[in-house]
Amino acid sequence: MAVDELSIIDRFFRPLAGEGSFALTDDAASLGVPAGFEIVVTTDMVAAGVHFLANDPADSVAQKALRVNVSDLAAKGAKPFAYVLGLGLGDETGEQWLAAFADGLGRDQKTHSMSLLGGDTISVAAGPVISITAFGLLPVGRMVHRFGGRPGDALYVSGEIGAGAAGLALLKSEAGPWDALPEKARNILVRRYRVPEPRVALSSALLEFASAAMDVSDGLVGDCDKLSAASGCSALIEAGRIPLPDGLGMVDERILARLLTAGDDYEILAAIPPRNEAGFRAAAAKAGVAVSRIGSLRAGGGKRTDVLVEGRPLPLYRRAYMHRSGETRS
Amino acid sequence: MAVDELSIIDRFFRPLAGEGSFALTDDAASLGVPAGFEIVVTTDMVAAGVHFLANDPADSVAQKALRVNVSDLAAKGAKPFAYVLGLGLGDETGEQWLAAFADGLGRDQKTHSMSLLGGDTISVAAGPVISITAFGLLPVGRMVHRFGGRPGDALYVSGEIGAGAAGLALLKSEAGPWDALPEKARNILVRRYRVPEPRVALSSALLEFASAAMDVSDGLVGDCDKLSAASGCSALIEAGRIPLPDGLGMVDERILARLLTAGDDYEILAAIPPRNEAGFRAAAAKAGVAVSRIGSLRAGGGKRTDVLVEGRPLPLYRRAYMHRSGETRS
Repeated sequence: MAVDELSIIDRFFRPLAGEGSFALTDDAASLGVPAGFEIVVTTDMVAAGVHFLANDPADSVAQKALRVNVSDLAAKGAKPFAYVLGLGLGDETGEQWLAAFADGLGRDQKTHSMSLLGGDTISVAAGPVISITAFGLLPVGRMVHRFGGRPGDALYVSGEIGAGAAGLALLKSEAGPWDALPEKARNILVRRYRVPEPRVALSSALLEFASAAMDVSDGLVGDCDKLSAASGCSALIEAGRIPLPDGLGMVDERILARLLTAGDDYEILAAIPPRNEAGFRAAAAKAGVAVSRIGSLRAGGGKRTDVLVEGRPLPLYRRAYMHRSGETRS
Repeated sequence: MAVDELSIIDRFFRPLAGEGSFALTDDAASLGVPAGFEIVVTTDMVAAGVHFLANDPADSVAQKALRVNVSDLAAKGAKPFAYVLGLGLGDETGEQWLAAFADGLGRDQKTHSMSLLGGDTISVAAGPVISITAFGLLPVGRMVHRFGGRPGDALYVSGEIGAGAAGLALLKSEAGPWDALPEKARNILVRRYRVPEPRVALSSALLEFASAAMDVSDGLVGDCDKLSAASGCSALIEAGRIPLPDGLGMVDERILARLLTAGDDYEILAAIPPRNEAGFRAAAAKAGVAVSRIGSLRAGGGKRTDVLVEGRPLPLYRRAYMHRSGETRS
């Protein structure tokens, strides 16, 4: 369809607009900041065939586009509150898709206490391409960075690693140990690929106890490389401690390596100083988020993360998901 | 090329990063707000084949992507200071394009005193698709809106209308009165299409004197419809008062209608109360921006703008540019 932007705004997006948006009738929006707070901003783009499958349900596409941003905010300790939306639509995208997309966005912004501040809808040669810039609030100067980790800090990860990658493999009918799982477990993995669960509930525990944190979006190993490099450290991970989805705990090393270097986890990787570990565990338990101690930071920057299986290095044929058009993650 | 995001950041975008960006090494950026100010945010996406031509120089593509956002901020009276960049690249986009794109962005952010806060680079099936969210500062509560115009307010427009549309027609070899212009004048029109000149210098005059304003990006007539509707008024424009590019002042009515309803002007349309007109003109002159009084707001909302030529309505076959993939503006 040709993009009649005004009609799309009227029908689908105005109901999502909140404070500062001027009901999407102006050229720009206003971001007020309560005294003592700063705004944290993050931006993520997702495209059909790369970050989601062209036939994924439109509401889950919207949720994924929003949640990958929410996940970044949560990792920084920030409370999400607003976002702007850039939407590039191909000719094949119809009103039904748009209605479902807006519905998914509407449900999700409610879940995360966010509102739409503004946006732009354009035609593109091949879509959809969705660009979201999301805003969170933090007490001034309190952002949890990737840097800040120290040698001796424990490394924790939330939830499970590899569920999204296994879900994508199922959607693409790639053979693997996931095929042997019961249908319900397979559906959960697919759901984890399509609709990440950003760990917003963990953000205040990070603010209080973490020396460094980031969200795991491009593969645990590569992301751990980034956190430790930013902190001037190197990292040691014990593969046996990494929480994997039910039924995928005993996979072979090739599959294990794949799950640890695939994208779409949207879990939190955090460095916790030893004196803070008990507090962090208690706060995470109170928040209802499972966290696992998977390793630690060591002195000496410039080295890649060592991933050990029973004391031996796990062979890794890559460190992280690499973006390539026409090739979805994992 | 496949997108190696880390290498692209290192080579091309880190040099553009400024305060609050943490050198693009974190998941999110920090937006501090000086006391007494609020942040104004706008987002615009541009795509090859729609907002720019696939063979346009990469540096001008970057400049256009940034400037369409700067134009929105200027129209609201805000001073631009930062932006985030979403970049969707097709396989055909190489390093040379990226280097020129980053160069254009770097020159332009310097011109506009902005810095890069963060970004995301992804692969898309057909690119480039560029999404920029830009931030400006305003004294709290002082944003110049589309609403706020009153019956009797004069309508002013900055610069010239139709230069971008004529430039695009030249690039697409569409016959018209622009063909008869000397080469230098034709080059200026092409340049106006590729690289808009946002009227940042006018923003403090707008803050002080305008009751309403917006940037003209989708055609003067349709944008005037929007400003007057938001203000609960209708508008009267005298076509003879609209500043057109040199040599296009005597065009026939069909061409005139096209120039007044095409995109890519990035001029400012402002409503100025009669008591403020002298002040506004003086402030614009001091800022070095030509402004022309083209009409006025009248009582009665819900009506479209009347465009008169010597007292008769100008026949308009459309009101505004409509986005359609594969069909560039104008």
